[in-house]
Amino acid sequence: MLPTELIDELMRFRAERDWEQFHTPRNLAISLSLEASEVLELFQWRDPRGEAMQEVLPRLRDEIADVAVYLTYLCRDLDIDLEQAVRSKMEQNRQKYPVALSKGSARNTPN
Amino acid sequence: MLPTELIDELMRFRAERDWEQFHTPRNLAISLSLEASEVLELFQWRDPRGEAMQEVLPRLRDEIADVAVYLTYLCRDLDIDLEQAVRSKMEQNRQKYPVALSKGSARNTPN
Amino acid sequence: MLPTELIDELMRFRAERDWEQFHTPRNLAISLSLEASEVLELFQWRDPRGEAMQEVLPRLRDEIADVAVYLTYLCRDLDIDLEQAVRSKMEQNRQKYPVALSKGSARNTPN
Amino acid sequence: MLPTELIDELMRFRAERDWEQFHTPRNLAISLSLEASEVLELFQWRDPRGEAMQEVLPRLRDEIADVAVYLTYLCRDLDIDLEQAVRSKMEQNRQKYPVALSKGSARNTPN
Repeated sequence: MLPTELIDELMRFRAERDWEQFHTPRNLAISLSLEASEVLELFQWRDPRGEAMQEVLPRLRDEIADVAVYLTYLCRDLDIDLEQAVRSKMEQNRQKYPVALSKGSARNTPN
Repeated sequence: MLPTELIDELMRFRAERDWEQFHTPRNLAISLSLEASEVLELFQWRDPRGEAMQEVLPRLRDEIADVAVYLTYLCRDLDIDLEQAVRSKMEQNRQKYPVALSKGSARNTPN
Repeated sequence: MLPTELIDELMRFRAERDWEQFHTPRNLAISLSLEASEVLELFQWRDPRGEAMQEVLPRLRDEIADVAVYLTYLCRDLDIDLEQAVRSKMEQNRQKYPVALSKGSARNTPN
Repeated sequence: MLPTELIDELMRFRAERDWEQFHTPRNLAISLSLEASEVLELFQWRDPRGEAMQEVLPRLRDEIADVAVYLTYLCRDLDIDLEQAVRSKMEQNRQKYPVALSKGSARNTPN
């Protein structure tokens, strides 16, 4: 997901603060969900495009980074190969949403 | 975040189904939050470790992949460099949580 | 929030199944958040009105009920008077969002 | 859910600010989910009991009130009878989780 050297930095950041003790898979899943909500909060009352989107971008970058960080810890701690997980999920989605049936249909978008 | 070639596959998957029309930043943020909740749902009533965690892993891999997919679409559509976003957030966290003050303290864990 | 007699039924439902042991405040908060996401999931790719909303209503009623149930358990277990909590929050919102400044402005909507 | 007179106050609070325009069912569902996440955030890194729980209570009351407020707007706008919705959901749960099978088992707790 992120370059190995950056992942190592994240692991070091956590180790230096002795935070592994708080990073159970369940706690990481809670934080992942909370950070994803902070991404959504930027869109709570608006659907920004163009100029308006540019205004939101700096905070959005930070919140998206938080999601990526917790996703990285979860994958590292549980030995999940994110790239392989995405490939396998895409294969499932190809079966579930064949182009012929899904083209232009929101109903058939993954959820 | 993911190898360029895999990101291109994700973009192609979406384009073939003509789904860009549904992938506004706001809709992607909603889906990111919903998928992160599906990760958390695997931990709703339990805090699995070891053996019990192995049972959860296959579904966890799939849900984590969904989070990564929506994160990738968001970054691609908004021209967000995830690696740079994480580096900048880590820099902020280093300032906010100096080792001396944060060591072993959950209160000072990012939220 | 709900009639006392219905709240008592909820408490009995839980007691008969010996589920109080799982209903820690933290677990109830996780479930509250998961059920609220299931409400949102009904709107993941669409913004239904009129006819389309009628289609969603039966599932929406069930998901909203789940949110209300966990909210009720949380308030009961923590001795929170929901009515008083809402009155106090409204008072705060009146200060925070005076009509003169907030009228017709989404930016000034509570979040 | 709340006394009619308090619900009327909530409707008046919204009308005075001309906020109905932002309160589409979809937007209310987003806000419901965000507020439920703010409840969960109070438990992000801790599982407070007794004394520690007392510390969290004031903020918890406010966040729980926000959830109740958006739940109330949703029910009012969509003509959902929350009490009846909860009764019907409990009936479903009684079928789904018979005491004999569910007693003391987290796996069989609703999700």
